[in-house]
Amino acid sequence: MSFAATVLTLYPDMFPGPLGHSIAGRALAEGRWSMDTVQIRDHATDRHRTVDDTPAGGGAGMVLRVDVLARALDAVPADGRPRLALSPRGAPLSQARVRSLAAGPGVVLVCGRFEGFDERLFDGRNVEPVSIGDYVLSGGEMGALVLLDACIRLLPGVMGAASSGDDESFENGLLEHPHYTRPVDWEGRLIPEVLRSGDHARIAAWRKSMAETDTRLRRPDLWERHVGARVGSPSGARHDD
Amino acid sequence: MSFAATVLTLYPDMFPGPLGHSIAGRALAEGRWSMDTVQIRDHATDRHRTVDDTPAGGGAGMVLRVDVLARALDAVPADGRPRLALSPRGAPLSQARVRSLAAGPGVVLVCGRFEGFDERLFDGRNVEPVSIGDYVLSGGEMGALVLLDACIRLLPGVMGAASSGDDESFENGLLEHPHYTRPVDWEGRLIPEVLRSGDHARIAAWRKSMAETDTRLRRPDLWERHVGARVGSPSGARHDD
Repeated sequence: MSFAATVLTLYPDMFPGPLGHSIAGRALAEGRWSMDTVQIRDHATDRHRTVDDTPAGGGAGMVLRVDVLARALDAVPADGRPRLALSPRGAPLSQARVRSLAAGPGVVLVCGRFEGFDERLFDGRNVEPVSIGDYVLSGGEMGALVLLDACIRLLPGVMGAASSGDDESFENGLLEHPHYTRPVDWEGRLIPEVLRSGDHARIAAWRKSMAETDTRLRRPDLWERHVGARVGSPSGARHDD
Repeated sequence: MSFAATVLTLYPDMFPGPLGHSIAGRALAEGRWSMDTVQIRDHATDRHRTVDDTPAGGGAGMVLRVDVLARALDAVPADGRPRLALSPRGAPLSQARVRSLAAGPGVVLVCGRFEGFDERLFDGRNVEPVSIGDYVLSGGEMGALVLLDACIRLLPGVMGAASSGDDESFENGLLEHPHYTRPVDWEGRLIPEVLRSGDHARIAAWRKSMAETDTRLRRPDLWERHVGARVGSPSGARHDD
C-alpha cells in the first residue's frame, strides 16, 4: 500500500504543484504515493458557499468555519490516517515526526487561510495542529507541500541508498557535518586535508566533531537537548516533553 | 520598487508554482513582487553539464559543485539583495527575519539538491544558509516557496489591514490566541462566553492570557525566550544570540 495524502484546501490547484517535479514527482508517477484534494468550499451549505466568518470577540481577518471544515473532514474515508492542520499554533514539525508519518498509511492535511481555524475543530474532529516553523504564511498549503515532501523522500524506493539518512541533519539530534566536493582548490579555498587523506577513521571522527561543533555554535537549542538526552538530565527530559 | 526574488535552482519549472495562486499570485499580477529563476545547470562548464560530484572523504549522495554555483551567482546582478541558501544547517527562519527581508529590495535564493552545498560557497560568495525547520526536504525549492510566501504577504498592499499583524503568532514572541467564529453552538461546543460579552477590555485580557498560557504549555522554548527577553536576564540574552 502506498502513502496516501488527502489535502483539504480552498486552493486545490496548488497540488501536487512542486510535488509533481523531481523526486516526489517521479515517486508519484511510480505510485509510491498518491494524493487527492478536497475543496473545502464544496462543503459550505449556504448558496454563497461561505467558508469563513468574522472572529468572535472582534478583530481583523476572518476565521474558517468549524462546521464547514468538519463536514469536509467527514467526507474523507476514516482509514486510520492522522489528521493534521497546518497552524503556527501547532507543535513544530520534527524529522522524528516526519519519519513516523512516512512509516504510516498517509496523512489528511487541513490547510487554513485567513486568520486560521476555529479552535473547536481540534478536539471536535481529532485534528492535531502542526507548525512547519516560527513564521506566518498566507495559508496552510505551503506547509502541506513541505510536510509531504519531507515524508515522500523517506518512502521505500524513493531515494535509495542516499536516504539511509543516519548522518543527515536532525536524524541524531545534530546538524549534519559540512560537505565538500571537487574542485579541491577553488579560488584558493581548499577542501580540508583530512577529507583527502583516505583515512576513514580520521574522516569519521572529523565529521562527528564538526557536526557537534556546528550544532553547539549555531543551534544551542538543539545542542542542549542533545546533551540533555544523552546524560538523561532533568533538562533533557523537560525539553523532550 | 517592488520586491524582487531570484531563485537559483535545478527545477525552475517549480516556480512560481503555488505562489502563482491566491494572495501571492494576485500580488505577482499586480507587480508588487517579481521573480526570475536561474537554471544552475546552465552554468556548468563541461559538455555533460555536470552540477554535482561525490562528497570529499566519501559517503552517500552527491554535493553541488561550488564553482558551478558561484558562476550562477555571479551572473545575478549585484544589487544589494541578501543571498540565502536553503539548508538544514542554516539559522532557523524567524518571523523577525521575514519582516526584515520583506522590508528590503528582495532576495537571491539558492536551492540545493542531493546532499547539499559545498561549504566553501558560504564564505566564498557571501551566501547565508537559512533553514525553514528541523526536518529534511528533497531540495531547497520548497523552502524557497515558503520563505517567499512569508515575505510576500507582508508587502505593502498585499493583505491590507489583515496583515497589521501585531497579534499574529511570533510577532511578539508568543503564539497567537485561539480563534472562534459562528456558529456559537457547534455540536454542543460553545464559543467561550467572554468572546460573546462585547466587553473589549475583558476580551483583550482573555486573549493575552490565552496566548501566554498556550505558549508556555505548547512551546516552552518560545516562552523561556519571551520571559528572558522581558526581564533582561542572562538566559534571555543568550537565547537572543
